[in-house]
Amino acid sequence: MTNSASERPGEFALIAELFAPLADAPGAFGLTDDAAIVTPPAGHDLVATTDALVEGVHFFAGDPADLIAKKALRVSLSDLAAKGCAPAGYLLALSLPARIEMSWLRAFAGGLHDDQRAFGVSLLGGDTTTTPGPVTIAITAFGHVPAGAMLRRTGARPGDIVFVSGTIGDSGGGLVCLKDGGAALQEHHRAFLVGRFQVPQPRIALGHALLGLASASIDVSDGLIADLGHIAETSGVRIDVEAERLPLSAALASVWPDRMDRIVRAATAGDDYEIAFTAPPEHGDAVLGLATSAGVPITQIGLATAGEGAVLLDANRRQIPIDRPGYVHF
Amino acid sequence: MTNSASERPGEFALIAELFAPLADAPGAFGLTDDAAIVTPPAGHDLVATTDALVEGVHFFAGDPADLIAKKALRVSLSDLAAKGCAPAGYLLALSLPARIEMSWLRAFAGGLHDDQRAFGVSLLGGDTTTTPGPVTIAITAFGHVPAGAMLRRTGARPGDIVFVSGTIGDSGGGLVCLKDGGAALQEHHRAFLVGRFQVPQPRIALGHALLGLASASIDVSDGLIADLGHIAETSGVRIDVEAERLPLSAALASVWPDRMDRIVRAATAGDDYEIAFTAPPEHGDAVLGLATSAGVPITQIGLATAGEGAVLLDANRRQIPIDRPGYVHF
Repeated sequence: MTNSASERPGEFALIAELFAPLADAPGAFGLTDDAAIVTPPAGHDLVATTDALVEGVHFFAGDPADLIAKKALRVSLSDLAAKGCAPAGYLLALSLPARIEMSWLRAFAGGLHDDQRAFGVSLLGGDTTTTPGPVTIAITAFGHVPAGAMLRRTGARPGDIVFVSGTIGDSGGGLVCLKDGGAALQEHHRAFLVGRFQVPQPRIALGHALLGLASASIDVSDGLIADLGHIAETSGVRIDVEAERLPLSAALASVWPDRMDRIVRAATAGDDYEIAFTAPPEHGDAVLGLATSAGVPITQIGLATAGEGAVLLDANRRQIPIDRPGYVHF
Repeated sequence: MTNSASERPGEFALIAELFAPLADAPGAFGLTDDAAIVTPPAGHDLVATTDALVEGVHFFAGDPADLIAKKALRVSLSDLAAKGCAPAGYLLALSLPARIEMSWLRAFAGGLHDDQRAFGVSLLGGDTTTTPGPVTIAITAFGHVPAGAMLRRTGARPGDIVFVSGTIGDSGGGLVCLKDGGAALQEHHRAFLVGRFQVPQPRIALGHALLGLASASIDVSDGLIADLGHIAETSGVRIDVEAERLPLSAALASVWPDRMDRIVRAATAGDDYEIAFTAPPEHGDAVLGLATSAGVPITQIGLATAGEGAVLLDANRRQIPIDRPGYVHF
């Protein structure tokens, strides 16, 4: 762990003490060195992904610090999940304004601690710096996958079936609740949706099970249609999504009562951290059979065809116009 | 490359286009996937380090964008150098305020492009997000080192000689010039010092050559005495630095004319990105012989002894008091 910008050297020493117990992998050296060893096991590839979360953009200043930590970590673990990787560890670059107090940092470290247990990962190293701006959290997560087996965005072929895990749009609904209060909602609906926004659930077990079955895979962060558009572009196919098939939670109906409006919002809200993927038809049954072992519903939502782009089709197979396919942050 | 916070989706698409040509390693997939493959060559460890640089803390808002990019990359490459690693690639998490223009980003990408050639590294992936705050750049750099050979902070033993590469304090002098103008300095002195602040030189060749010779190693970022203090603490030794031996540039004398004041400032200013290291006496001549091949002066500055802490000694071996051993940012 290195501490730049030591205007607050005492405080930064405390931060290092706070984070050191999280660095329990051998290659982390208990944060006592400048770099970590992240060599993968023999026969495996090491996969790395980085994401930055900014206060006021990806989370609210008043959000509980332990949940902010969990979201920051889980956003990166979700990328690994969609690539079929077993998560191993992460590096943390934390930029902190002077107003942040030790109690906030303790809660933040506590959130990381809990999620390290939940996902079997270790803090491997990091950097703490001051900032005149908002809290900014950059996490680089590492995962292992059998050599050459990483699930890619490429690989979807015409005729492949398109699937998505879980339900779509809940995080967008949770964001509406946090902005508007969601007072009209039943409390358990509101709690469910806000929870989906604040603490996403990376689909690690599903991603691992998709190795050898899926032809292309991505986690839904920008928005379902936008992310399937990424698969369409890199695979050189068109992806037709049938609006009627989209898996939506019961809670979401209380946020957006109009059905077609709800579908379009859910398909574009993003921040879902479900896995959207394609598989050849001969693997269709095997894929649907994974729902139990992976602990998450899996829904067939469309087909890959010849052409380009990802589109949302109504019951008459007419394209539903979408203003913007991806996520708009608050 | 993932783009969160797509309030400016068109702009973020342009950024992805701008950075894609920098991703020329096979595992980067031209930034068309969510994660990169960073598996090291057989028989090697993969070493990773992360650093965040914040506008107004680590660089000035008006600094040339290509130099900001170079500094951000080189700060991480310097960590790899001190660990004896050959640099391989990096991930970039970039948080950008709305005021940033494409011309700035083009210059930023241009700086990365030049340094990728200079150091033989590739962009492997990244994340771009908006921020209501300052430009924040988090880089995670990867390097390779023969398995088990990474230079550590531990390993210094009583009797080991303490060395440092290059000259110390120039970056601190450069910062004084940038804040005060440095108008009284000769232009070539000012340019040299500002250059040392803005574009550090990671000592890659030296670090590699130190494998098998150095017992402990660190790059000087916090300040020479603070960083040697890290070696002292993790190795369980005391480090005596002889003030008279510190390698100082001629240019530095024009910033801080008083000799003892200059020495103390140089030993604590930080941001030097030289390598401070220890080696057993039997390797002393071999170490000094590396200066030519590594292209950087190497100076013997002290000894490791029994005890704890790193201290600066005057010609009479009296300890010179130091208010704070590490770097204070502007």
